[in-house]
Formats: sequence, C-alpha cells, structure tokens
Amino acid sequence: MALIVQKFGGSSVADAARVMNVASIVTDTYRAGNDVVVVVSAQGDTTDDLIAKAEEINPKASRREMDMLLASGEQISIALLAMAIEKLGCPVCSLLGWQAGFSTNSTHGSARIKKVSAERIKMEIAKKNIVVVAGFQGLNKYDDITTLGRGGSDTSAVAIAAAMQADRCQIFTDVEGVYTADPRKVPNAKKLEDISYDEMLELATLGAQVLNNRSVEMAKKYNVQLEVLSSLVRKPGTIVKEVSSMEKMLVRGVTKDTNVARITIIGVQNDPGIAYKIFGKLAAKNINVDIILQSVGRDNTKDIVFTTTKAHAEECVEVLQGLDLLAGLKITCETDVAKVSVVGAGMESHPGVAAKMFEALFEADINIQMIATSEIKISVLIDAKDADKAVSAIHNAFIPVLN
Amino acid sequence: MALIVQKFGGSSVADAARVMNVASIVTDTYRAGNDVVVVVSAQGDTTDDLIAKAEEINPKASRREMDMLLASGEQISIALLAMAIEKLGCPVCSLLGWQAGFSTNSTHGSARIKKVSAERIKMEIAKKNIVVVAGFQGLNKYDDITTLGRGGSDTSAVAIAAAMQADRCQIFTDVEGVYTADPRKVPNAKKLEDISYDEMLELATLGAQVLNNRSVEMAKKYNVQLEVLSSLVRKPGTIVKEVSSMEKMLVRGVTKDTNVARITIIGVQNDPGIAYKIFGKLAAKNINVDIILQSVGRDNTKDIVFTTTKAHAEECVEVLQGLDLLAGLKITCETDVAKVSVVGAGMESHPGVAAKMFEALFEADINIQMIATSEIKISVLIDAKDADKAVSAIHNAFIPVLN
Repeated sequence: MALIVQKFGGSSVADAARVMNVASIVTDTYRAGNDVVVVVSAQGDTTDDLIAKAEEINPKASRREMDMLLASGEQISIALLAMAIEKLGCPVCSLLGWQAGFSTNSTHGSARIKKVSAERIKMEIAKKNIVVVAGFQGLNKYDDITTLGRGGSDTSAVAIAAAMQADRCQIFTDVEGVYTADPRKVPNAKKLEDISYDEMLELATLGAQVLNNRSVEMAKKYNVQLEVLSSLVRKPGTIVKEVSSMEKMLVRGVTKDTNVARITIIGVQNDPGIAYKIFGKLAAKNINVDIILQSVGRDNTKDIVFTTTKAHAEECVEVLQGLDLLAGLKITCETDVAKVSVVGAGMESHPGVAAKMFEALFEADINIQMIATSEIKISVLIDAKDADKAVSAIHNAFIPVLN
Repeated sequence: MALIVQKFGGSSVADAARVMNVASIVTDTYRAGNDVVVVVSAQGDTTDDLIAKAEEINPKASRREMDMLLASGEQISIALLAMAIEKLGCPVCSLLGWQAGFSTNSTHGSARIKKVSAERIKMEIAKKNIVVVAGFQGLNKYDDITTLGRGGSDTSAVAIAAAMQADRCQIFTDVEGVYTADPRKVPNAKKLEDISYDEMLELATLGAQVLNNRSVEMAKKYNVQLEVLSSLVRKPGTIVKEVSSMEKMLVRGVTKDTNVARITIIGVQNDPGIAYKIFGKLAAKNINVDIILQSVGRDNTKDIVFTTTKAHAEECVEVLQGLDLLAGLKITCETDVAKVSVVGAGMESHPGVAAKMFEALFEADINIQMIATSEIKISVLIDAKDADKAVSAIHNAFIPVLN
C-alpha cells in the first residue's frame, strides 16, 4: 500500500465524460489498495470564461478580486470529480486550497506556497476517503484567497506530495510521458523511462511544456518522485527522480523554443562594469535574459547580443534606449529566431556532443547565430523557420544514443 | 451616517450591465456617507447550470459536494460586483460566507445560521471598504462549506444586519415593494408604505414571494428594520418593522397560493387520538400540513380533510395508505385547488372582515371548499381556476380600507 498523489489538468476534466474517466483512474488506484490524494485544475475553458466576464466589467480589476473569481473554477471541478467518484462507489471528500492547508504569500495572481498544513488531508485519508483537492489556490495571512499563477496545479500536487511524504506524485497530461523530442514533430521521438530533475528542469525551461518549472524545482528540493503519464492511455509514463546511472545519461532530449527575441547592441564602450549596468537595469525591470554573448568590436568597442522572451522584447529595447551609456548606439531586435537545445546530464564529460550537434546542423544547411552551453545542455539560436528541421536533424544524429 | 445592509438577488446581477447597475446603487449609498455591506446571490441561472452539471455526472451526489459546487456561484458574483465597484472608484472587499463569519449547522443544502462572527466585516468597514458578502453560504463546525437553501441570501443579509446592529437592511427585488395584491394580476393593487413583521410573515408564507420567511422571522427576532424595494426604479419601497398604528391595520393584502393539494380521508373511526396518530406520522416524515378540517360523519365515523404542498401530496397519500388504522378507507387527493387569503393585524377585532370576504366570493360565484382563520389572516380553499378572479373580487371589496 502506497500514498499516491494524482494531478489532472483542465483538459482532463473538461466535460462530464472526462470527469468520469478521471474518476475511474482514481478509483482504480484506490481499489488497488492505495491512499489517494487527487489535485485538479479548473475545467477546460472555465478560467478563460471567468476572465472574459471580469474584462467585460472591469479590465483593471484588482488582483485580489481576480483571485476570488478564478478560485471558483477549481471549486467547481473538485465538487464534480468528487460526485463522479461517489458514483463509482468510493468514499470521497473534496477540499478547497485553504481547507487542504495551503498557506501562500500575498502576491495575488502568482502567489508562492509557504506551507501546506496537511492535517485535514491526513484526517480524511485516515477515514479511508479519497481526497480531491483544488489546485492552483491557497490562502494568505489575511485569510484572503490567492492563486498560484499558470501551471500552479502541478506545484500544488508536488507540495502535497512533499508535505505528506507521498510515495509518488503522478502528473496526468495529454501526452504519454517525456519524449526525446516533440512526438508531433519528430516521428521517431522516443518516450524516456526516466529522467533526472535537472534534465527535466532544462526541458521544462526550454519549452517542452510537460511540467511546470516550479513544480520540478520543488520535487527536486523535497525529493518527490514524479511520474508524467497520460490520462487517456493506461500505461507507465516517465519517472522524474534523482538518476545516477551515468552511462545512460548522454543526450536525453532535443527541444525547441520559439518564444525568443534577439537583442543586439553595436559599439558599446569597452568599460569595466558596463555589462553589470545593462543587465542590472533589465533585472530591476524583471526582464529575464537568457543567452548572452559579448565580443570585442572595432575601435575599443564591443557588441553585446542577448536573448529574452518575445513578450519582454519591446520593453527591453525601451529600457536600453533610455540608458545614458548606450545613447546614440544602434539597438536592434529580431523575433524570427528560435532556440534549439540538446539536454543530458552526462554531456559535459562528452565533448563530442557539441561537435555532433553542430555537424548535424551544418549538414542540414542551418546557420548558427549564437551558442550557449551549461553543464547539461547545449543551445543554439537559429532562424525560426529552421527550428523544426533542426530538431529533426539533431534528433536523428543522436538517436542511436537516445534513451 | 448609517450602517446599511443591501441585498441583491440573482436576477439583479444576471449580466455585466446589471452588475454595474447594482454597483451604482451601492456606491451612491456609500458616497452619501453610509457604511455599506452588500449581500449577493449567484448570477441569474448560475445555480441551475451548476445543478445541471452535477446531474449529468451523478444525480445522487451527496449534499456536501452539492454545497461545495453551488457555493462557487456566489463566489463569482461577489468578485464581479467588487470589480464593478472598483471601476466606479470606491474601495471594496469581497468576502465568502466563511470569511464573513457565517457559522451554520451541518444540514447541507438547508443549513441554519448559528452565528455570524462579524469581526472581519467590521475590520473592512473600519478601513472604509464597501464589503461584498456571498449570501446563501456558511461553514459548519468541521470547516465544510454549507448552503442555506432557497431564499438563503435574504437570511444572510438579515443575519449580518442583526450581528452588526445595522440601521436598515434593504432587500432589492424586481418589484417596488409589498403590495395589497399581486400588481401583475390586480391592476389597482397598492404599494404599502409599511407593514408589520407578522403581517409580512403571513404574506410570505402565503406565497407573496417577496421575502423569504426565515429572513422575516429573524428580522422580527432581532428587530432588524427591513425595506423591500426595486433594484431598477429608485424610489422608497415598503418598510417592514414593528408597527403599532392599529387604526391603519385592517386588511393589508390579498394573496393566492396555488402550491396546494387537498387530501381527504372518508370514514375514519371516531377514536380519541386518531388525529394525533395521523398527523404525528406525517410530521415524522417532514410533511407540512396547513389547513385541517374534521367533521363527524355518519355511523360514528368522521371525515378528515387537510391541505399540504403539491410536492408532498403523493408521499402524503402513500404514508396514509400505509397506516393500519386507515386500512380500507378511501383516501383522495386533489391538486386543482388554490388558497386565497386576506392578511391584516387588526382583523381579529373586526368580525366584519370574514363576512365581507365571503360576500365578495359569493358575488363572484366562487365556491368555498374550506375556511381557516388565524389572528391576522383568513384563508379559503377554492378551485384553482377561480384563484385570480377571487383575489380581484376580494381586493376590490376591501380597496376603500386598503393602505
């Protein structure tokens, strides 16, 4: 007998038939002798519908009232899922975020979980109830409802698994696990049996969109074993855990991220501290910067090139144009770029990986604009139009060693 | 400066335009220098839509989960109304039932308010916030969400007014106040300036449907001054309070109630205690009985005739057929009947009222099946088809003395 936390997203509970499907997965797990805590998001388009209602009344509504509004979405889905579980004959109890003990800070709209006081969940488990918890929401110290922001339900599930020391936290999605590349784009992509937290973090950051980043960070911190699996096909998914088998860990996946903009500043004075002044200012404006390259240019000046998200690109240029030390310099922004990366924990000790990646791109006639490497990944910036071709080419080059 | 509680029903907040209308009433009251607590119900058809969703999944869902589901309706409407008030530039804070301090018993679906701990409301009022409270809902001692049942938002409003010792509790509806008869049916019906709690209770019970009964009872108990008024037309409504001007209090209104069924038992043995056995059994099944008549019949038997609601009629007959002491007796049930009543606190000291009522019915050629009187009302049971005609005839007979 194990304690299993299961998380289902909005599309998994979008209508009555899907709610019943989730209920059957949950009750099968329960009847197999496990204690089960289920975390669910709001149904399908509920959140978007609620946002539309708010926009109609007040597009500048306060974050506090938005949270009050949006939290009703999960309230509906936990009640409906509990009713479906009742119909399948299992004892069940639904709990809102605050009832399940979620304390957060007061950043309405993207609150951080401070603590999960799981007494009530434990009490319901002791009564042999299946517990259905509203994801995405909590309560701040003023007893006001908060929401965790996008992907928050993954984090809710991992937080409960950590607080309850669950044996496993299963994240159900519409894919069967974590793949070596996007299976919709790369037909010979393979499902990974397991992957380390760090590799998963790189994949999540790079746009694999299977798991929310904060949830993987939290899982790593509290050593929660995650499983990514499908709510539609009943087979094992991909386990995310601390993996130590070095020989298996070369290249684990190839990803692309098209939400990238490239900013170029030509002819910056080559003074000490100039990078600090530029990027310090951007950080102060909460603008995330990814790859940074700096080269000594002509006449004792240098060129600085870096990437940010498309959403930040315009603001980024404005901030730079407002800096005295860049006055008169040419600042350009390109958005037709994409970042393609290979991820794998053993990579740093295998220098051949980078060479093989560049060779594959060369043979596919794809020009590399920028290169960045970390301990477990190599990223290149290329033209957006080449992105899918690049993923396929790199994936095919590595496929004998993948998984 | 006064403390005013304002309650708006579901149709008053049915869409964005109506929410804005309510917000303008509330902010006008606030800007006139008052402290304002607003109680709202779920928007328009929200509750029915949620019930339909539940039925699709599990028609026998537990009451606890139904309450969890339905309470989301008011959560949406308080958030939207708060956003509308923000848009009109006034400080505001929405509160769920539990945040507003509503403790109830554990009868899910029709919980009773045990206490309102208004500290949070008082704190928000002290911060000069308009407070928007979710009606219809509370929390039981296990920290589970409960709902108060139909009309519960009226009771929520009165409970807050009582707990805060508010100067007035305004119940906004789609009519302009309490009328001497249904103004849609009786063109010369008049709006009452004021009415006593007891008279209002009789009118509510008799189907005037302006105010929920429990809310009037609570208002009387805690001496909360109620005002029934329109959310669409800005003029004074009807004040419900302890009225002492006897000379004004003759007939205050004429009502009809078509949710009536008449049950007849012919030839019951004339034994002592038989009424107790019959009606005790019905009370044990929670079947409400209204008018009861008993007559000595032939052969030392008697006939018992009584009324109940249409919803209870079938069960009522089944219960009676299951009683040994009624075995073999003829039990009939008629549902094409209506109850028409005149209400007025001074009535008992004016015996002419009953005679005048019966005369009006006689002249309208309407047959009276049963008669029941109390201190402040006279009710007759007639054919359902005659109900509107009866109300008009009685109203016209009394109109010189009405209001």
